[in-house]
Amino acid sequence: MANSEPCLKHMVTRVAINGFGTIGKRVADAVDAQDDMEIVGVTKTRPSFGCDLAVKKNFPLFCTFDSQEKIDAFAEAGYDCQGGLSDLLSICDVIVDCSPGKVGSENLEKYREAGVKSIFQGGEKHELTGKSYTSSANHLDNIGVDCTRVVSCNTTGLSRTLVPLFESIQDKGTLSVNSVMIRRAADPGDSSKGPINAIKPVLKVPSHHGPDLMTVKQEIEITSLAVAVPTTIMHLHAITVELPSNHGLSTKSVIEMWRKTPRVIVMNGTDTKITSTAEVMELARDIGRKWGDLHEIFVWEDGVSLQGNKLYYFQAIHQESDVIPENVDAIRAMMDIEKDWMISVEKTDKAISAYYGL
Amino acid sequence: MANSEPCLKHMVTRVAINGFGTIGKRVADAVDAQDDMEIVGVTKTRPSFGCDLAVKKNFPLFCTFDSQEKIDAFAEAGYDCQGGLSDLLSICDVIVDCSPGKVGSENLEKYREAGVKSIFQGGEKHELTGKSYTSSANHLDNIGVDCTRVVSCNTTGLSRTLVPLFESIQDKGTLSVNSVMIRRAADPGDSSKGPINAIKPVLKVPSHHGPDLMTVKQEIEITSLAVAVPTTIMHLHAITVELPSNHGLSTKSVIEMWRKTPRVIVMNGTDTKITSTAEVMELARDIGRKWGDLHEIFVWEDGVSLQGNKLYYFQAIHQESDVIPENVDAIRAMMDIEKDWMISVEKTDKAISAYYGL
Amino acid sequence: MANSEPCLKHMVTRVAINGFGTIGKRVADAVDAQDDMEIVGVTKTRPSFGCDLAVKKNFPLFCTFDSQEKIDAFAEAGYDCQGGLSDLLSICDVIVDCSPGKVGSENLEKYREAGVKSIFQGGEKHELTGKSYTSSANHLDNIGVDCTRVVSCNTTGLSRTLVPLFESIQDKGTLSVNSVMIRRAADPGDSSKGPINAIKPVLKVPSHHGPDLMTVKQEIEITSLAVAVPTTIMHLHAITVELPSNHGLSTKSVIEMWRKTPRVIVMNGTDTKITSTAEVMELARDIGRKWGDLHEIFVWEDGVSLQGNKLYYFQAIHQESDVIPENVDAIRAMMDIEKDWMISVEKTDKAISAYYGL
Amino acid sequence: MANSEPCLKHMVTRVAINGFGTIGKRVADAVDAQDDMEIVGVTKTRPSFGCDLAVKKNFPLFCTFDSQEKIDAFAEAGYDCQGGLSDLLSICDVIVDCSPGKVGSENLEKYREAGVKSIFQGGEKHELTGKSYTSSANHLDNIGVDCTRVVSCNTTGLSRTLVPLFESIQDKGTLSVNSVMIRRAADPGDSSKGPINAIKPVLKVPSHHGPDLMTVKQEIEITSLAVAVPTTIMHLHAITVELPSNHGLSTKSVIEMWRKTPRVIVMNGTDTKITSTAEVMELARDIGRKWGDLHEIFVWEDGVSLQGNKLYYFQAIHQESDVIPENVDAIRAMMDIEKDWMISVEKTDKAISAYYGL
Repeated sequence: MANSEPCLKHMVTRVAINGFGTIGKRVADAVDAQDDMEIVGVTKTRPSFGCDLAVKKNFPLFCTFDSQEKIDAFAEAGYDCQGGLSDLLSICDVIVDCSPGKVGSENLEKYREAGVKSIFQGGEKHELTGKSYTSSANHLDNIGVDCTRVVSCNTTGLSRTLVPLFESIQDKGTLSVNSVMIRRAADPGDSSKGPINAIKPVLKVPSHHGPDLMTVKQEIEITSLAVAVPTTIMHLHAITVELPSNHGLSTKSVIEMWRKTPRVIVMNGTDTKITSTAEVMELARDIGRKWGDLHEIFVWEDGVSLQGNKLYYFQAIHQESDVIPENVDAIRAMMDIEKDWMISVEKTDKAISAYYGL
Repeated sequence: MANSEPCLKHMVTRVAINGFGTIGKRVADAVDAQDDMEIVGVTKTRPSFGCDLAVKKNFPLFCTFDSQEKIDAFAEAGYDCQGGLSDLLSICDVIVDCSPGKVGSENLEKYREAGVKSIFQGGEKHELTGKSYTSSANHLDNIGVDCTRVVSCNTTGLSRTLVPLFESIQDKGTLSVNSVMIRRAADPGDSSKGPINAIKPVLKVPSHHGPDLMTVKQEIEITSLAVAVPTTIMHLHAITVELPSNHGLSTKSVIEMWRKTPRVIVMNGTDTKITSTAEVMELARDIGRKWGDLHEIFVWEDGVSLQGNKLYYFQAIHQESDVIPENVDAIRAMMDIEKDWMISVEKTDKAISAYYGL
Repeated sequence: MANSEPCLKHMVTRVAINGFGTIGKRVADAVDAQDDMEIVGVTKTRPSFGCDLAVKKNFPLFCTFDSQEKIDAFAEAGYDCQGGLSDLLSICDVIVDCSPGKVGSENLEKYREAGVKSIFQGGEKHELTGKSYTSSANHLDNIGVDCTRVVSCNTTGLSRTLVPLFESIQDKGTLSVNSVMIRRAADPGDSSKGPINAIKPVLKVPSHHGPDLMTVKQEIEITSLAVAVPTTIMHLHAITVELPSNHGLSTKSVIEMWRKTPRVIVMNGTDTKITSTAEVMELARDIGRKWGDLHEIFVWEDGVSLQGNKLYYFQAIHQESDVIPENVDAIRAMMDIEKDWMISVEKTDKAISAYYGL
Repeated sequence: MANSEPCLKHMVTRVAINGFGTIGKRVADAVDAQDDMEIVGVTKTRPSFGCDLAVKKNFPLFCTFDSQEKIDAFAEAGYDCQGGLSDLLSICDVIVDCSPGKVGSENLEKYREAGVKSIFQGGEKHELTGKSYTSSANHLDNIGVDCTRVVSCNTTGLSRTLVPLFESIQDKGTLSVNSVMIRRAADPGDSSKGPINAIKPVLKVPSHHGPDLMTVKQEIEITSLAVAVPTTIMHLHAITVELPSNHGLSTKSVIEMWRKTPRVIVMNGTDTKITSTAEVMELARDIGRKWGDLHEIFVWEDGVSLQGNKLYYFQAIHQESDVIPENVDAIRAMMDIEKDWMISVEKTDKAISAYYGL
């Protein structure tokens, strides 16, 4: 029946993306891939190259601002702009804020006034939303909430490996974690930032990414330091975890646990000749990931070692993409579509794979 | 009297350098700067550019091997070669082995047979010598020994800041240290090694540089991880230290302690705009250090923070030179010239400064 | 009819890929995308990660060697290997040699004995095949030939912009070209090669990539120099062309000509903020190219300037992929499927775009 | 006699340095090394680290500005400031302007009013001074002038190799030069500038450094392009020169000519394993140059090749220092101390070597 479609449409969650840039375009794709949600609009501040991508994907285009002048600028540049942010807010259930940051609190006000649920990214502080999210740590805590924050790429990466580790020993004590984050100093498409030949410590200590994990799993004790290095691809974490003495784990059992953990890839660096972040990114290209992205955290199997109570490991984080599927899961939590995080994760990841023909 | 000079000469320690390369040429200069020791010869495996430097410095040139053919090759290339290793061993009191490594045990045999004391570098294992050395940790333990090993640049760097810290709390407990070493992947003059755009974890965990500190100060509990990054200048350590709960220290007192520690520079990165290893190396050039070397460890004052029992700090290590003055002090220990490490260090450093006109 | 399919199958060219690596896997995809050719097999030297990619794409897998032992190794590793190189040669019309080089002449012998046409890559010398190929320069010369060589990524890039330029002035004289190639020192997935912080001149002068253009368009006078630099993405050419004095061109007309040239992208760096190879590669990711590849040559519009008889311009070359579509066109030439290079190019490129859903 | 010294003092040229930074501190040292000139003062904009260097060298310190408040700031920071720029101008014969640029014309006005001769650096345009300078090209043209400009590091480098080449063929015609400059993107002590992993063309073509050579030797036809790459050490020039057909030169004779040319080092890259700018800079450290500087241009002997009328070569330029001795020679020209550039160059270089104990 012709009128069944609107009905059906109404059953899927209507998602808006505020800021169709590096993160926004990826979240839009991931949402578009799901059968229980749809993109009703994406915003750009002005007509620019990114608009072509929206047009190509058939995502309705809106202006980040409500100013008629700014909206009209799109038509002049040949783009069909559907209106301003207010117009977009009037037709969506949830908005994913992927704006460049610093305008978070101003935006939240607008979202609340419009009665629209909202998701912020890790560039904003926990205090803004009062609630943070990773799929594996606290999906259930986010069921039905009006506003949450998907934590940063680094914190998401820590959550992926540390939360299952914590759960495997939690009746015996907790984890005491020390993570040093070796950060890529610029993104691949950024040719202005340095350094070219130096290591730059982040002098504000401890760095916030480690402790930020406690916003989603407060029981884990964690501290972190960060340094920036001259590479554009992936962060790398050098992690030492102190376990309770009666942990009952082994190097092998930890590796096996992570092998079964969603969104974690465990591979042997020596066997596969994946000796650095360069080969990890090449793996992502080889397996055909769009944009060469890697949604998963990469753990070197032969860098995992449990010696007494100390567990050592290295993990690589694709800074541009590991949080993407978490945004989809967060929508499901907020809209109370799926309470079980494992089911949501599986659904999200399968749909994304199918969407890209992988 | 004319014949008093040979007498006097006999009173200074006669030092040989086996391997006049990156480390060897620097140790030779540092020894030559002292009034209680002299260079009696340096070795090269064959006539090459490095010989010119020896000639310029008036260091007698020897061949690393005893083969007459190899010795003769020097004359053919226009260099005045005084003989082979055996000849050199017959005229020295102590030999500093700066050979590229892997030939340590073979060399040690020769040194012992010749009755010459010997110093190895950190590329060799502690097991070879059974004794290791840093100026601040165990000078006294090395008094009169026949053979020792100056630990690696990284371990020397850890000793500089951790030993005084340990001594300041040692009646209350010990330190539990976690160090992540972010290593320069190649030396400045090496254009073949990569990576160009990647971070490379050292998968053998824990990395040996941290635990190696226990060969000179066994009471400090320490573990370490290492990653290599695309830079040619300086290693950087991201360090977290757990102190005994009654430590009695403050961020300020720790900084003050290090300010007074020999061969440690503490500077505020924000005030001085020294934000990375690039500016640290520029500082070394600015203050006129030969080869742009920095014998000292550089600690960022504004990266030091003591929070509860946890002390965080970053230090930068000039991989080519921080061990140089330690070799001089080690000679004094082995020859029983000076029992007080502080006096030896002061003498060593002043002589080096004067030598270079600084 | 059931038996029409074998008939139809027989009408498409049966293509084999010898060496399913960086270039081989890309050529296989590009061939697979065409309706007038099909992949009948790809080779690997031994079971390894790359086999999974072949399996996923349903490309029949063969061993690079005929040794039964080496063939059996695939089955042991769980891969279905269809036989050795001889078996593959018995079922194909043309083989694309993407082996790592140095084994070209040995391979050519085998191909000839099997009566199979063959295409080599630019790593081999012109002398091997006696015939070279780029789509725009000499498609017609390659009609029906048994063996040719698709020139290197750099030479292909030079052909793309210089051949149409030459044709636009050829009744008036010729071009005298000076190209300096600034080469990426390692591929993105290679973490071992340097330099990290240096510029390395290629001391054999002139570099062969420029003069190699004369194997496909002998009338163009060209010389070139090359240097390697610490980047993993794209080569860049800094080109100066001396035109005949009565050239009749203008900066604008040259830009317009290149805008209409297949496989050349002309964009304004200032307007688009594409200021370096980093942003060019980001563009390739943005427009959704598999592996982030860019088959086209990128020319900076605002770096093109014709001053008197001198034309200056810069072009960026994606070393991993610009030759891929040329291999497809070369197959069409050799099999005499299409004599008009423009028609072949359009067909090739459309099919590749559709294949990847772009 | 006691009063003979002021007399003597009056006979040496009194030199001021306006801007005691990267270039200024080096020029100050080079001037201080000469017996026919002396440093009467150096300026800093405010009390900062660089003042310590001036104090250490006993160079009188002045403030770049005349504002009493700014002058007083030095005393507050513990530095003995002798006054403002006007005070410095009243006691010097010539001032070397090493200010960061853009303030050139304003400064020139002040210098002229004070009746002081002045030298500007290559960051300023030729139009400012109407006169430019390199030692080998036009020393004689600068005898007695009031104001000149020492051209940039790149142009100075081109002058070193091209002027003697031009002179060797000038009765037969001229040179037509094509130079591509591969530039280091940031200085060693700069950790903010990128790119990290990209090649950046300088889109304004031709780049000014080549044609700027014509301000000192107008007969040489030259054009140039430039690209920036991720390294901090040395520019590299890839040069092609078209010679008159009856040039009478050979690869060997060109190499011999450059061997005899002051401030040019010619070495064989294969024999010496100096394969890139990394090893060239290591050479500078090895031979003990202050700051690791290399005042000379480095030419790879095995990269020089004369084929027909085309001469190819590569040269490396130490961007921080090759112009330093030229500033000294320029002072001699302006003060009419020495008319023969070869004599001035030899005097300058010998004095600098002796000053640093080389």
